[in-house]
Amino acid sequence: MPEQGITMVLDKGLGIRELEDLLEVAGTYFHFLKLGFGTAALYPPEILRRKVELGHSHGIKVYPGGTWLEIELARGKSLEQALRTLSQWGFSTLEISEGTVSYEARTRRRLIRLASEAGFTVLSEVGKKNPCYPFDPPAIAQQIEADLEAGAQWVIVEGREQGKGVGIYDAEGGIKEHHFSRLLDLVADPQRLIWEAPLPTQQLALIRRLGPYVHLGNILPEEVLALAALRRGLRSDTFFWLEKWRNQVVTSAARAELG
Amino acid sequence: MPEQGITMVLDKGLGIRELEDLLEVAGTYFHFLKLGFGTAALYPPEILRRKVELGHSHGIKVYPGGTWLEIELARGKSLEQALRTLSQWGFSTLEISEGTVSYEARTRRRLIRLASEAGFTVLSEVGKKNPCYPFDPPAIAQQIEADLEAGAQWVIVEGREQGKGVGIYDAEGGIKEHHFSRLLDLVADPQRLIWEAPLPTQQLALIRRLGPYVHLGNILPEEVLALAALRRGLRSDTFFWLEKWRNQVVTSAARAELG
Amino acid sequence: MPEQGITMVLDKGLGIRELEDLLEVAGTYFHFLKLGFGTAALYPPEILRRKVELGHSHGIKVYPGGTWLEIELARGKSLEQALRTLSQWGFSTLEISEGTVSYEARTRRRLIRLASEAGFTVLSEVGKKNPCYPFDPPAIAQQIEADLEAGAQWVIVEGREQGKGVGIYDAEGGIKEHHFSRLLDLVADPQRLIWEAPLPTQQLALIRRLGPYVHLGNILPEEVLALAALRRGLRSDTFFWLEKWRNQVVTSAARAELG
Repeated sequence: MPEQGITMVLDKGLGIRELEDLLEVAGTYFHFLKLGFGTAALYPPEILRRKVELGHSHGIKVYPGGTWLEIELARGKSLEQALRTLSQWGFSTLEISEGTVSYEARTRRRLIRLASEAGFTVLSEVGKKNPCYPFDPPAIAQQIEADLEAGAQWVIVEGREQGKGVGIYDAEGGIKEHHFSRLLDLVADPQRLIWEAPLPTQQLALIRRLGPYVHLGNILPEEVLALAALRRGLRSDTFFWLEKWRNQVVTSAARAELG
Repeated sequence: MPEQGITMVLDKGLGIRELEDLLEVAGTYFHFLKLGFGTAALYPPEILRRKVELGHSHGIKVYPGGTWLEIELARGKSLEQALRTLSQWGFSTLEISEGTVSYEARTRRRLIRLASEAGFTVLSEVGKKNPCYPFDPPAIAQQIEADLEAGAQWVIVEGREQGKGVGIYDAEGGIKEHHFSRLLDLVADPQRLIWEAPLPTQQLALIRRLGPYVHLGNILPEEVLALAALRRGLRSDTFFWLEKWRNQVVTSAARAELG
Repeated sequence: MPEQGITMVLDKGLGIRELEDLLEVAGTYFHFLKLGFGTAALYPPEILRRKVELGHSHGIKVYPGGTWLEIELARGKSLEQALRTLSQWGFSTLEISEGTVSYEARTRRRLIRLASEAGFTVLSEVGKKNPCYPFDPPAIAQQIEADLEAGAQWVIVEGREQGKGVGIYDAEGGIKEHHFSRLLDLVADPQRLIWEAPLPTQQLALIRRLGPYVHLGNILPEEVLALAALRRGLRSDTFFWLEKWRNQVVTSAARAELG
């Protein structure tokens, strides 16, 4: 996948025509389309199948929000049954999360491993939706490494739809610097992370900290092109900054080569 | 109408293709489509007629915001003339409100009765758009009962497009508990009310207070599927809660049966 | 152009079908469609051309955000090269701004004059995107007069996408009364200004101050019909106000005639 940073879009119910529009205009600027929450279960099946097909025909992986699988399992379905349902709808990507429910660590690993062995692209997610759970960088970092080892392709850092009072974000949607840098210190390869960053200010903050190729998620459909512009210095906020960033990267690379 | 809670959508200018998209994806999850404010008067007539038809063909009642009729009457049109215009456009539902203008109580009753006798589905609305008018639960409750008696099918509780500083909402969009519970105490059948609740936090708050079948209005088109998920426990916020709610309802029913 | 106030829409990436929808429903209520930031450079060329054509076929001038040209020139392109690119895409309107970069006054005048002489409709923009630059009414007013003299048709007053902490707006998006009235005092013909006013509260505030025909920009596509309603007294906020405003205008005109 992409030489650009990954962009994952949050789809709260796009119609066929809206999705066609988005794909035509911005289909080369995003990589995942998440059908938010448990909404996958609410679509008329033929519309759902058509959406999945449309995405795939543009090289975009479509998948249901992690809550969908949490609910299936909580209601007593087996992972095998859930994977069968996903396959019938045409999905080949899924998300394994504990946003609402909690598993034992070995159950989580088993889910990731089995889904991965069944041929699915597996995204896992770390973090809780309920703000009462503290965001503990060492525990999160440990989970990230375990997920990747078990077969997750990327690990999503929870930010919810609003990006406020959850994960690395404070109640106003700003980044909690201490949590954020602590997490970065503890994770071996930050490029395996997709940061949910629904607010444009968060997208900018993460680009400035981690560069234009940072992987970002929960982007609203109407913001995809604006984000692509931001990543490329085609907006005031990154216009001069990107130039400086490139010079630094080149300088660092040259220094590294010279030893 | 619905065994589910009613969902009324605020339409600020959807095009034909957008409406087709919404109907295909979520047409079974909403029941009313309100053409907001006085915008009905601004559409090219053939587009307006097509929208009304499209809604009706999916069992959805389309109607112009209450402001439309307030303006017609304020400009000297008779109710009969207004109803004739509505019929020409294809509408069979209308809203009778005093969001901006004020009528005498008997005028209001007469409008509701006549429109109802003319074969229209009548929604009335209580509450003022201007925050200078206090929200007085006893007066509101009295108006609700009078409206229902005069022939209104449902009574909408004003929340405006923003849901802030109006009706039961404080300046931040939170529920004013005292006003809210006082109003509930005074109304004979709360299931005849449709609560305008444009903010997702308000939708959640009202679902938690009045159950998943509560009637909600001024829902944005892009939130219809997310609200349907919320009502069904397909989102983190109601996932566990709905289970508990169902158990309580069953327990109460059993207790009532046992006397 | 319009007897109504100009409405300029901010397009962050509308697809063909969405644009068709917007034009069918509200095509008579707006006059400019700005492809925001530098996004013009990101569209597949055939989609971009189709959008420009579609707009033109409805009498709407489509143009790239000022940032696009700022970038082209900063990257060493000449104005002639930039105009050639614009022509190839079908544009016949452009914006000359210093939102991010800064030119000498005579360079700015030359750009406006040359683009104008090349047959383009030229919009210029005053104000900086970066909040560190103070908004200085006398300097802004001087720039406005120079731009108009050099050939700009209208001058846009910067408000960015968010309308907060920029130009005439404070950090909450309210109007800084002192700056605003000072600027108005200094400008010979305020009807040559287009005020970027992305927030509905700003649209209302400017209509109340400058009348329903005030020129407004950075309107979101989904707000075009609502703004048209606001301008025409078809919303509660201007329902009674417009009546009073008309009476005042008529009275002033009569007084002026009587001398």
